[in-house]
Amino acid sequence: MSDAPQENRLAEPFAFQVHARQRRARVGVLHTPHGEVLTPAFAPVGTRASVKAITPAQLEELGASLVLANTYHLYLRPGDELVAEMGGLHCFMNWHGPILTDSGGYQVFSLAASRKIDDDGVTFKSHIDGSTRRLTPEISIAIQENLGADIIMAFDECAPPHDRTYNERALQRTHTWAERCLQAKKRSDQALFGIVQGGVFADLREDSARFIASLGLPGSAIGGLSVGESKAEMDAMLEVVDAILPEDKPRYLMGVGTPEDLVNGVRRGVDLFDCVLPTRLARHNAAMTRRGRLNLVNATYASDPRPIDEACACYTCRNFSRAYLRHLIVAKEMLSATLLSMHNLHTLLDLAREIRRAITDGTFEDFAGQFFEEKEGIRDI
Amino acid sequence: MSDAPQENRLAEPFAFQVHARQRRARVGVLHTPHGEVLTPAFAPVGTRASVKAITPAQLEELGASLVLANTYHLYLRPGDELVAEMGGLHCFMNWHGPILTDSGGYQVFSLAASRKIDDDGVTFKSHIDGSTRRLTPEISIAIQENLGADIIMAFDECAPPHDRTYNERALQRTHTWAERCLQAKKRSDQALFGIVQGGVFADLREDSARFIASLGLPGSAIGGLSVGESKAEMDAMLEVVDAILPEDKPRYLMGVGTPEDLVNGVRRGVDLFDCVLPTRLARHNAAMTRRGRLNLVNATYASDPRPIDEACACYTCRNFSRAYLRHLIVAKEMLSATLLSMHNLHTLLDLAREIRRAITDGTFEDFAGQFFEEKEGIRDI
Repeated sequence: MSDAPQENRLAEPFAFQVHARQRRARVGVLHTPHGEVLTPAFAPVGTRASVKAITPAQLEELGASLVLANTYHLYLRPGDELVAEMGGLHCFMNWHGPILTDSGGYQVFSLAASRKIDDDGVTFKSHIDGSTRRLTPEISIAIQENLGADIIMAFDECAPPHDRTYNERALQRTHTWAERCLQAKKRSDQALFGIVQGGVFADLREDSARFIASLGLPGSAIGGLSVGESKAEMDAMLEVVDAILPEDKPRYLMGVGTPEDLVNGVRRGVDLFDCVLPTRLARHNAAMTRRGRLNLVNATYASDPRPIDEACACYTCRNFSRAYLRHLIVAKEMLSATLLSMHNLHTLLDLAREIRRAITDGTFEDFAGQFFEEKEGIRDI
Repeated sequence: MSDAPQENRLAEPFAFQVHARQRRARVGVLHTPHGEVLTPAFAPVGTRASVKAITPAQLEELGASLVLANTYHLYLRPGDELVAEMGGLHCFMNWHGPILTDSGGYQVFSLAASRKIDDDGVTFKSHIDGSTRRLTPEISIAIQENLGADIIMAFDECAPPHDRTYNERALQRTHTWAERCLQAKKRSDQALFGIVQGGVFADLREDSARFIASLGLPGSAIGGLSVGESKAEMDAMLEVVDAILPEDKPRYLMGVGTPEDLVNGVRRGVDLFDCVLPTRLARHNAAMTRRGRLNLVNATYASDPRPIDEACACYTCRNFSRAYLRHLIVAKEMLSATLLSMHNLHTLLDLAREIRRAITDGTFEDFAGQFFEEKEGIRDI
């Protein structure tokens, strides 16, 4: 461990400037060693060092800035040491913009075949080969230092949102583990974000936000949401946390989401989002639009010459009909996953661009109002 | 059927000019209503109106000119009438360069679940849903006119290469059917190519080449090769046919090939090639290089930081290591098919570019000699 004071590990390369605000919404720039992230931003997910069915060149054309990769998956395969040997994640996956890795915590609790949690860490079986593995705050940080992302996350315990006793106990661990992550951290070119937990309990969320804020980290994440609670509960928790987290640091709402989640989150002070939804829905033949979803396998699209969304400027909508996309799906052509992923990612990346513009112009509340009004009329398919 | 003289249906838009020759090899330009094809050319295959795992934008970046699509597959699904309704193949698949469709003949004989051939045509069962379908020369042309490719093919019967009796009978039908295709053809913006058959029998190939040449079509195809005969037999048949087919029309060797097939074919007067091999091998984890193949799933590549081919300038080789490609394959990430398809297509498209340059420079024989010398030393993996 370095002897340098903690501030040195968090400083200049990760400056965050807020340029405009409207109520709780804000527009800012997060600097990283691999470039800037204009916020609010949506981060596509490259779970295993690949945003599924999309090349980095296509991702760049889509205007992505921050890309997420998963520590749990890369730790198991191909292994973080191999990634380090290949020059780190940026080089390995050929994404030279900013990257964020999660801590592995969430996946250990949602994916691993069996797990035993103690105060020191978690022992679990790999969902790939059944081998016994262990993650602790120190191991998670060591893995994330091998991977070499610009933003790394504290190791946390994500409890079921409505179980108060579990959340109380998990919160203690999450806080202790956050401190241990900060102590374990060696690299000065990575920003460590702490994670606020606490389920749907306002008092726990308050405690957690205060504790995470007290660590003086360069950014705060909000975890344990969009995991089964209602939208109203999520909104309420965001409001509790928003009032406490430092205004001059970016806030990252983990694993969220949909177009409406973005608008709702920005309204409650969130700057960063990530979600597998756009690429996962694409592989299940669904196109996201701001007004709802189309399942393109439906026979109703068989001879429909229109693009997915006439208002959309993405590569897919500029060049391909619903009839063609349905044909690709029915014929099981891989290209459907690529074209739908491009469209779905564009939907969220473009929404984030419009949100930034609206906040800068001072029209975000109108924008949000109109967004939900337009959605009202439409039923998801 | 139009009353216009046959010449009018074949004329100007399909002019072919030979610009340089070296022995039997030649460099030329084939004009089509959707642009020029510089020959010798390799045509990527988009069986079901999609070059698998590749967007049209990527295909354009790779420098593809002519793209092939399959009449049999598109007739069964989504149906040629739907494609016509959507504005034809160019519009449907968003490939605005030249397109060639085959006649469906080869697939009926290799894919259909059962088939009954008579002198008028073939009745078969769809390999998709078992429905009974029929193709005749007239139906094949009608389908190809609905699809709207620039170059269309006569309906032929592809016999097993070593069965003389079958080849004699099939050749008669293929010739009669070629005449019927020419009679059935209505559109003036499509070039019909006749197909030379005759298995591995020099006298049958001679008869066939003479007959097809006598039809005065704007191009000649050589079918029934690379279907089980030896390389020496293929070379011998190409030489027989090359001596007879008109010098001022392009010659298209169907369903071929490998890098060595391209060099061998060009040496014997061939101008156009197509093959599913680059994209099919890619989906089976194999990278094509001029010197042999790499199967990237092999553990030997697990920590290999080199690109597939250090001499290759494709997107994949400029940006990704063998270790990363192997990781994608092991993790079953779709991106591996895209990146390997791009590399494999580049290998053939780039080889065609170098062949054209070498013929123009008068160095093609040296180029071919060196090509085979370099290959000698290397064993395919």
